[in-house]
Order: sequence, then C-alpha cells, then structure tokens
Amino acid sequence: MDRKKALEIVKEQLTEHRYQHTLGVVQTALQLADRYEEDQEKTELAAIFHDYAKFRPKEEMKEIVRKQAMPESLLHYGGELLHAPVGAYLVEKEAGIKDRDILAAIAYHTTGRVGMGKLEKIIFLADYIEPGRKFPGVEEVRQLAEEDLDTACLQALKNTVTFLMKQNQLVYPETINTYNSLLAQLKK
Amino acid sequence: MDRKKALEIVKEQLTEHRYQHTLGVVQTALQLADRYEEDQEKTELAAIFHDYAKFRPKEEMKEIVRKQAMPESLLHYGGELLHAPVGAYLVEKEAGIKDRDILAAIAYHTTGRVGMGKLEKIIFLADYIEPGRKFPGVEEVRQLAEEDLDTACLQALKNTVTFLMKQNQLVYPETINTYNSLLAQLKK
Repeated sequence: MDRKKALEIVKEQLTEHRYQHTLGVVQTALQLADRYEEDQEKTELAAIFHDYAKFRPKEEMKEIVRKQAMPESLLHYGGELLHAPVGAYLVEKEAGIKDRDILAAIAYHTTGRVGMGKLEKIIFLADYIEPGRKFPGVEEVRQLAEEDLDTACLQALKNTVTFLMKQNQLVYPETINTYNSLLAQLKK
Repeated sequence: MDRKKALEIVKEQLTEHRYQHTLGVVQTALQLADRYEEDQEKTELAAIFHDYAKFRPKEEMKEIVRKQAMPESLLHYGGELLHAPVGAYLVEKEAGIKDRDILAAIAYHTTGRVGMGKLEKIIFLADYIEPGRKFPGVEEVRQLAEEDLDTACLQALKNTVTFLMKQNQLVYPETINTYNSLLAQLKK
C-alpha cells in the first residue's frame, strides 16, 4: 500500500489532533529506520497505522479482545491499552495489511513486549518522542534515541511507569517485563 | 519466645548497624500494630526477625531457594530479595518460630505480595519508615502511615519501584502486582 492511500485510510479514523500526532510518528520513525537500518516502507506503514483503533468504542474493542482470544489481562488495565492490539487486528482485517512485523509494531506500541523486534522498538519510541510530544523527560529520550535504540526504549519505559504510578494508574505487567528484559540485556 | 531471647538470637546474625535498624523496625511496627489493632507479640517477633538472614552468604541462600522449591524467579532479580523468603525459612528452622503470620511477614517484607495480611503490611511499612531511614519521600510515607495502612504501603511501593528504575535495577514482578492490587482495592 502506498503512503497516500494509507494516510487517507487513517485520516478517516482519527481526530485532526491525533492525525497530526501520527504524521509526527511517521517522520520520527523514518529517521530512526534510517539511523538503525530498518525497512523504510514497513516503518512508514506501521507508523501511519499505529493509532488506527484509537477512537473505536471501548465496548467494540473489549469484544474484539474477547472474541480473538487476546490476553484477558488487557481488559483489566484501563481502556488506554486496548487500541494497540485491537488496532493490529483491525488493520489486518479492514486495511488488508498482512505483514507480521508491521502488525506486531502496532500491537505492542503502548505496552512494549519482551523480545520486541527492531521495528517494534522504532514505533514504540517514535510514538513517545515525535516532535509534538512535550512532557518532562522527553528530550532526554530524544537524545538517547540518536545513540542507542534499547537504551532509549528503556528510558521511555522508566518514564512511563514512573508517570503511571504518580497518576495512581495501573501498570501493565508486560511493561515491567519489557523493562526488566531490556535492562538485563543491556547489562550483559 | 520473649523479646529478650529473640533479640539475643538476631543480634548474633547482624552487624551493629543492621541491629540498630531492627530496633527501629520493632519500635515503628509496634506503633503501627497499636494504631491498626494487630497482635503486639506477633508484631514484635516478626519485626525482630525480619532481617535474620540478611548476612547469610548468597550461595547458601540460593541453595535454600532451590532446595525448598521457592519461586525460581527469586534467583534472577539480584541478591537483595533472597534474605526475606530465606529468612522466613531459617527463622522457622533455627529459631523455632512456627506462626504462619510471622513467617509470611518476614518472607514478603522486601517484595510485598498480592493479598498481604495486616501484619505483613505493618512489617513491610515499618522496614521502610523506621526512624533510621533517611531518603527522599520517606517523610510522606510516615505521614500516610498514620492515616491508612494501604495508602502508605502503596506510596512505599511507588517510591521503591521509581528508585529501582532510577538506579537501573530490575523490578521484581510481584512488587508491581502488589502495587496494582493495592491500587485496584483502594480505587473501589
């Protein structure tokens, strides 16, 4: 699928604000793909579609989690997690994207995953540092992203968990598992 | 077992510094037991013995984890976690303490546990806030401990996870599970 067609499809699914965020993620993800030698076309499609399900009704998303036998735990950590795995499912079903790397990058862009591949890390990170993001700590992660993909992902995970706890929000266990596994790998 | 005998036993196991910490935990735990209506005698013994295994050789502790079929995961999160569950085992074996509440309070005083009982929370918290503890955030937890046991434990867990991440240390998954379950309970 070409960029123009993909952008047309997601534009219909998103608010203007979220569409602008998506364009930021595309831009940043392509820079990271260039820096870390990832496939540009795959990266572009994953970035364009990463928030595809963001504005689907919660009930529709929960229904998909149940019917597609996704981890039951997704239903118990607030609604914010659902759009990523449900997005991967809908992007395949409705937009016909079949590439497993692209779908994984969409599915895990919010929680992370133990054993994330390069494209997954790039989308996870681009979502966190795209130029529209402005919050404490983002500049540090932007700097790290120029040096090392894993170190930057680790810092983004730290910031996310710390932020969630400060806000009295649940922390998805796989996010801590991702932190632990990246840290263990970096310490080797 | 009376206080004097118990203190004699642990004094032999600890450095002077750690023994002074233990006396602080006893003092704070008894105040919390009074405030939250927990058994004073059980609280005192749990507090006295909570760090019993602190200075056992790492290899001895790992051997006990393996032989006693404790969670294998304890072996993969740094040595700091081992003394709590191993301590519970040794306190039963070497000091003859049989009370399950006391042993659980010793076993989970470092990581926390989903479904902690009142005595477990008191020892977990007393270990964090005893008068000898001086680090950022401890005063806030001391204040909370006067108002609500769960809220204070939650804040101690948040501080601990944030601290571990800042120090690039692994976070034991059960600690996050404990945070999530306390938070979910408090939000009800």
